[in-house]
Amino acid sequence: MTLRTVEWMSKKEHSPLPGTIRMVDQTRLPEELVFLETSDIQEIWAAIKVLKVRGAPAIGVAAAMGLVAGIQEFDAPATAALLDQVDEVADYLASSRPTAVNLFWALNRMKRTARANAALAPTALKERLAKEAMAIRDEDAAMCRAIGEHGVTLLKPGQTILTHCNAGGLATAEWGTALAPVYVAQERGMDVKVFSDETRPLLQGSRLTAWELGQAGIDVTVICDNMAAKVMQEGRIDAVMVGADRIAANGDAANKIGTYGVAVLAHAHHIPFYVLAPTSTLDLSLDHGDKIPIEERGRDEVINGFGRLTAPENAQVYSPAFDVTPARLITAIITEQGIARPPFEETFRAWIPSGEA
Amino acid sequence: MTLRTVEWMSKKEHSPLPGTIRMVDQTRLPEELVFLETSDIQEIWAAIKVLKVRGAPAIGVAAAMGLVAGIQEFDAPATAALLDQVDEVADYLASSRPTAVNLFWALNRMKRTARANAALAPTALKERLAKEAMAIRDEDAAMCRAIGEHGVTLLKPGQTILTHCNAGGLATAEWGTALAPVYVAQERGMDVKVFSDETRPLLQGSRLTAWELGQAGIDVTVICDNMAAKVMQEGRIDAVMVGADRIAANGDAANKIGTYGVAVLAHAHHIPFYVLAPTSTLDLSLDHGDKIPIEERGRDEVINGFGRLTAPENAQVYSPAFDVTPARLITAIITEQGIARPPFEETFRAWIPSGEA
Repeated sequence: MTLRTVEWMSKKEHSPLPGTIRMVDQTRLPEELVFLETSDIQEIWAAIKVLKVRGAPAIGVAAAMGLVAGIQEFDAPATAALLDQVDEVADYLASSRPTAVNLFWALNRMKRTARANAALAPTALKERLAKEAMAIRDEDAAMCRAIGEHGVTLLKPGQTILTHCNAGGLATAEWGTALAPVYVAQERGMDVKVFSDETRPLLQGSRLTAWELGQAGIDVTVICDNMAAKVMQEGRIDAVMVGADRIAANGDAANKIGTYGVAVLAHAHHIPFYVLAPTSTLDLSLDHGDKIPIEERGRDEVINGFGRLTAPENAQVYSPAFDVTPARLITAIITEQGIARPPFEETFRAWIPSGEA
Repeated sequence: MTLRTVEWMSKKEHSPLPGTIRMVDQTRLPEELVFLETSDIQEIWAAIKVLKVRGAPAIGVAAAMGLVAGIQEFDAPATAALLDQVDEVADYLASSRPTAVNLFWALNRMKRTARANAALAPTALKERLAKEAMAIRDEDAAMCRAIGEHGVTLLKPGQTILTHCNAGGLATAEWGTALAPVYVAQERGMDVKVFSDETRPLLQGSRLTAWELGQAGIDVTVICDNMAAKVMQEGRIDAVMVGADRIAANGDAANKIGTYGVAVLAHAHHIPFYVLAPTSTLDLSLDHGDKIPIEERGRDEVINGFGRLTAPENAQVYSPAFDVTPARLITAIITEQGIARPPFEETFRAWIPSGEA
């Protein structure tokens, strides 16, 4: 059983309306598992802002649920007033992380749902929006589950995978993307083991991936990023599974910095390299990955990330947040729709009929 | 001009005898440049013990100088008593880091020199031993300088090299091994730039390499280990230069963990990969690198290295201290004797006639 990163606690039994939102406070990991339980809209805003909840899908779910929480106590005389309140709360929540695309996507979906149901009375509309937020959560979990079901067919019992960063349940409503096949394999008693790159600079691999796999009782070993080559050389890795932030039409995949290096190493050691992500990650408007813009991050994460200066104060630092793995290094790309193998574009186009992407 | 990691400060002008040993306190880097100046044998022992001085050659120099300091004030009635004192001080200093081979090598050389000069009066023997310690320092500096002179022929003006860990002046008496060509290039106005892998878990690349190159006015940029692949992909690296702890007869080279991964990446990007080390590193008794034993280090360096737990407390960790880069990935091996290219063994045997290794 995987952990639910964000979920609702019912106010009273059989009530169609949620009471509070319960989310894992990821800033307290890996030291301790603390849940934030709140229906306070300011607290939810702050939780998104300070990364108590993180990962594009999980943020979307938290925002949708937050919107429902933000209109619960609003005593709307008429639906028109409630619609205004929906817009106001949505705008407020959207300001928590102005660069998180999935945050806007989820809030816009909630606003559209509200407008499409303007004929309902205020109380019924509140219920309708609660259902929509639940649907966003359930759809995300189902999508991840489907990625896991497809991905697990690439694994054999007793195998060991290497992963990078955290594309696990903590980044989504449940299951995760890169880790979904591991959880499904565990359900099926396949005894799959994991090596997790710590993933500098922010250490999501050791802080989050090792934590969530450990919680689930899966055998996980933390290594520094620069140890992956040796672990592969020792013949201990059967497959690499990573997530993706954006995938171009030809299959080039942008993901957390370091992913490209792992792909080169996997290729050199004849280890299959799998990218697992929802089809919403496919950007068929980009021919190839060279066109994916790469954000550069601050120097402090690299040289002052642990409360102590680990380089000369005036040191020059280069810290790209992502890299692009060329399609030729990718064995397969797994989405909720299935498994794509090179050449990827054909399969992508079949999954996303023209115009939808 | 490079920094002298360990050197002597004369007691008085024109005195053949040293007064105090001055060494860079490497535990204070990169925050501040603090010199430890002492002739106290306990302080020297402690400096070696707690890594105020580190790097095999630098430790050897510090130990030899420490031995001279330890016998300075000994009021020897006859040379025999002084020889006993030499042995006693040497044994004491040898206990500071019982696994540092170069420490024993330097102290044994000092003891042999003492016994070979037993005919000298006590004061003359003290002077002779001071000269021997200076010779150990000067020979190490000259050897590193020679590595630099050979290595610089592999570089062109304006080029950028990538290095890993610290095989720089701080690990030797002066110049370093992997970094020696960079210092020589600077003298010649060749405008060579450096990218330095931070080198987890102990961050010697950001703490020490970035510091010493910055001090020397060389353009250096710190990256996390997992960023090296992207920097290469961007075409920013012209050559990789690393040190070695042990090199087998076929050229397989053991060095700091992560070196092997960098070699695979360099090969994939058609970037020359150079190993720079003294011939004392060659171990021709080993056919190949599979026979080099690899120490495994403690989990705390990986998951609790910065005063805060960065993984679940009970997380499994794998932390090999070194890895072995196979000869086929090495473009050339540079020692004080010259440049060896594949097949390496022929050149190694010419450098070290049978029996000497």
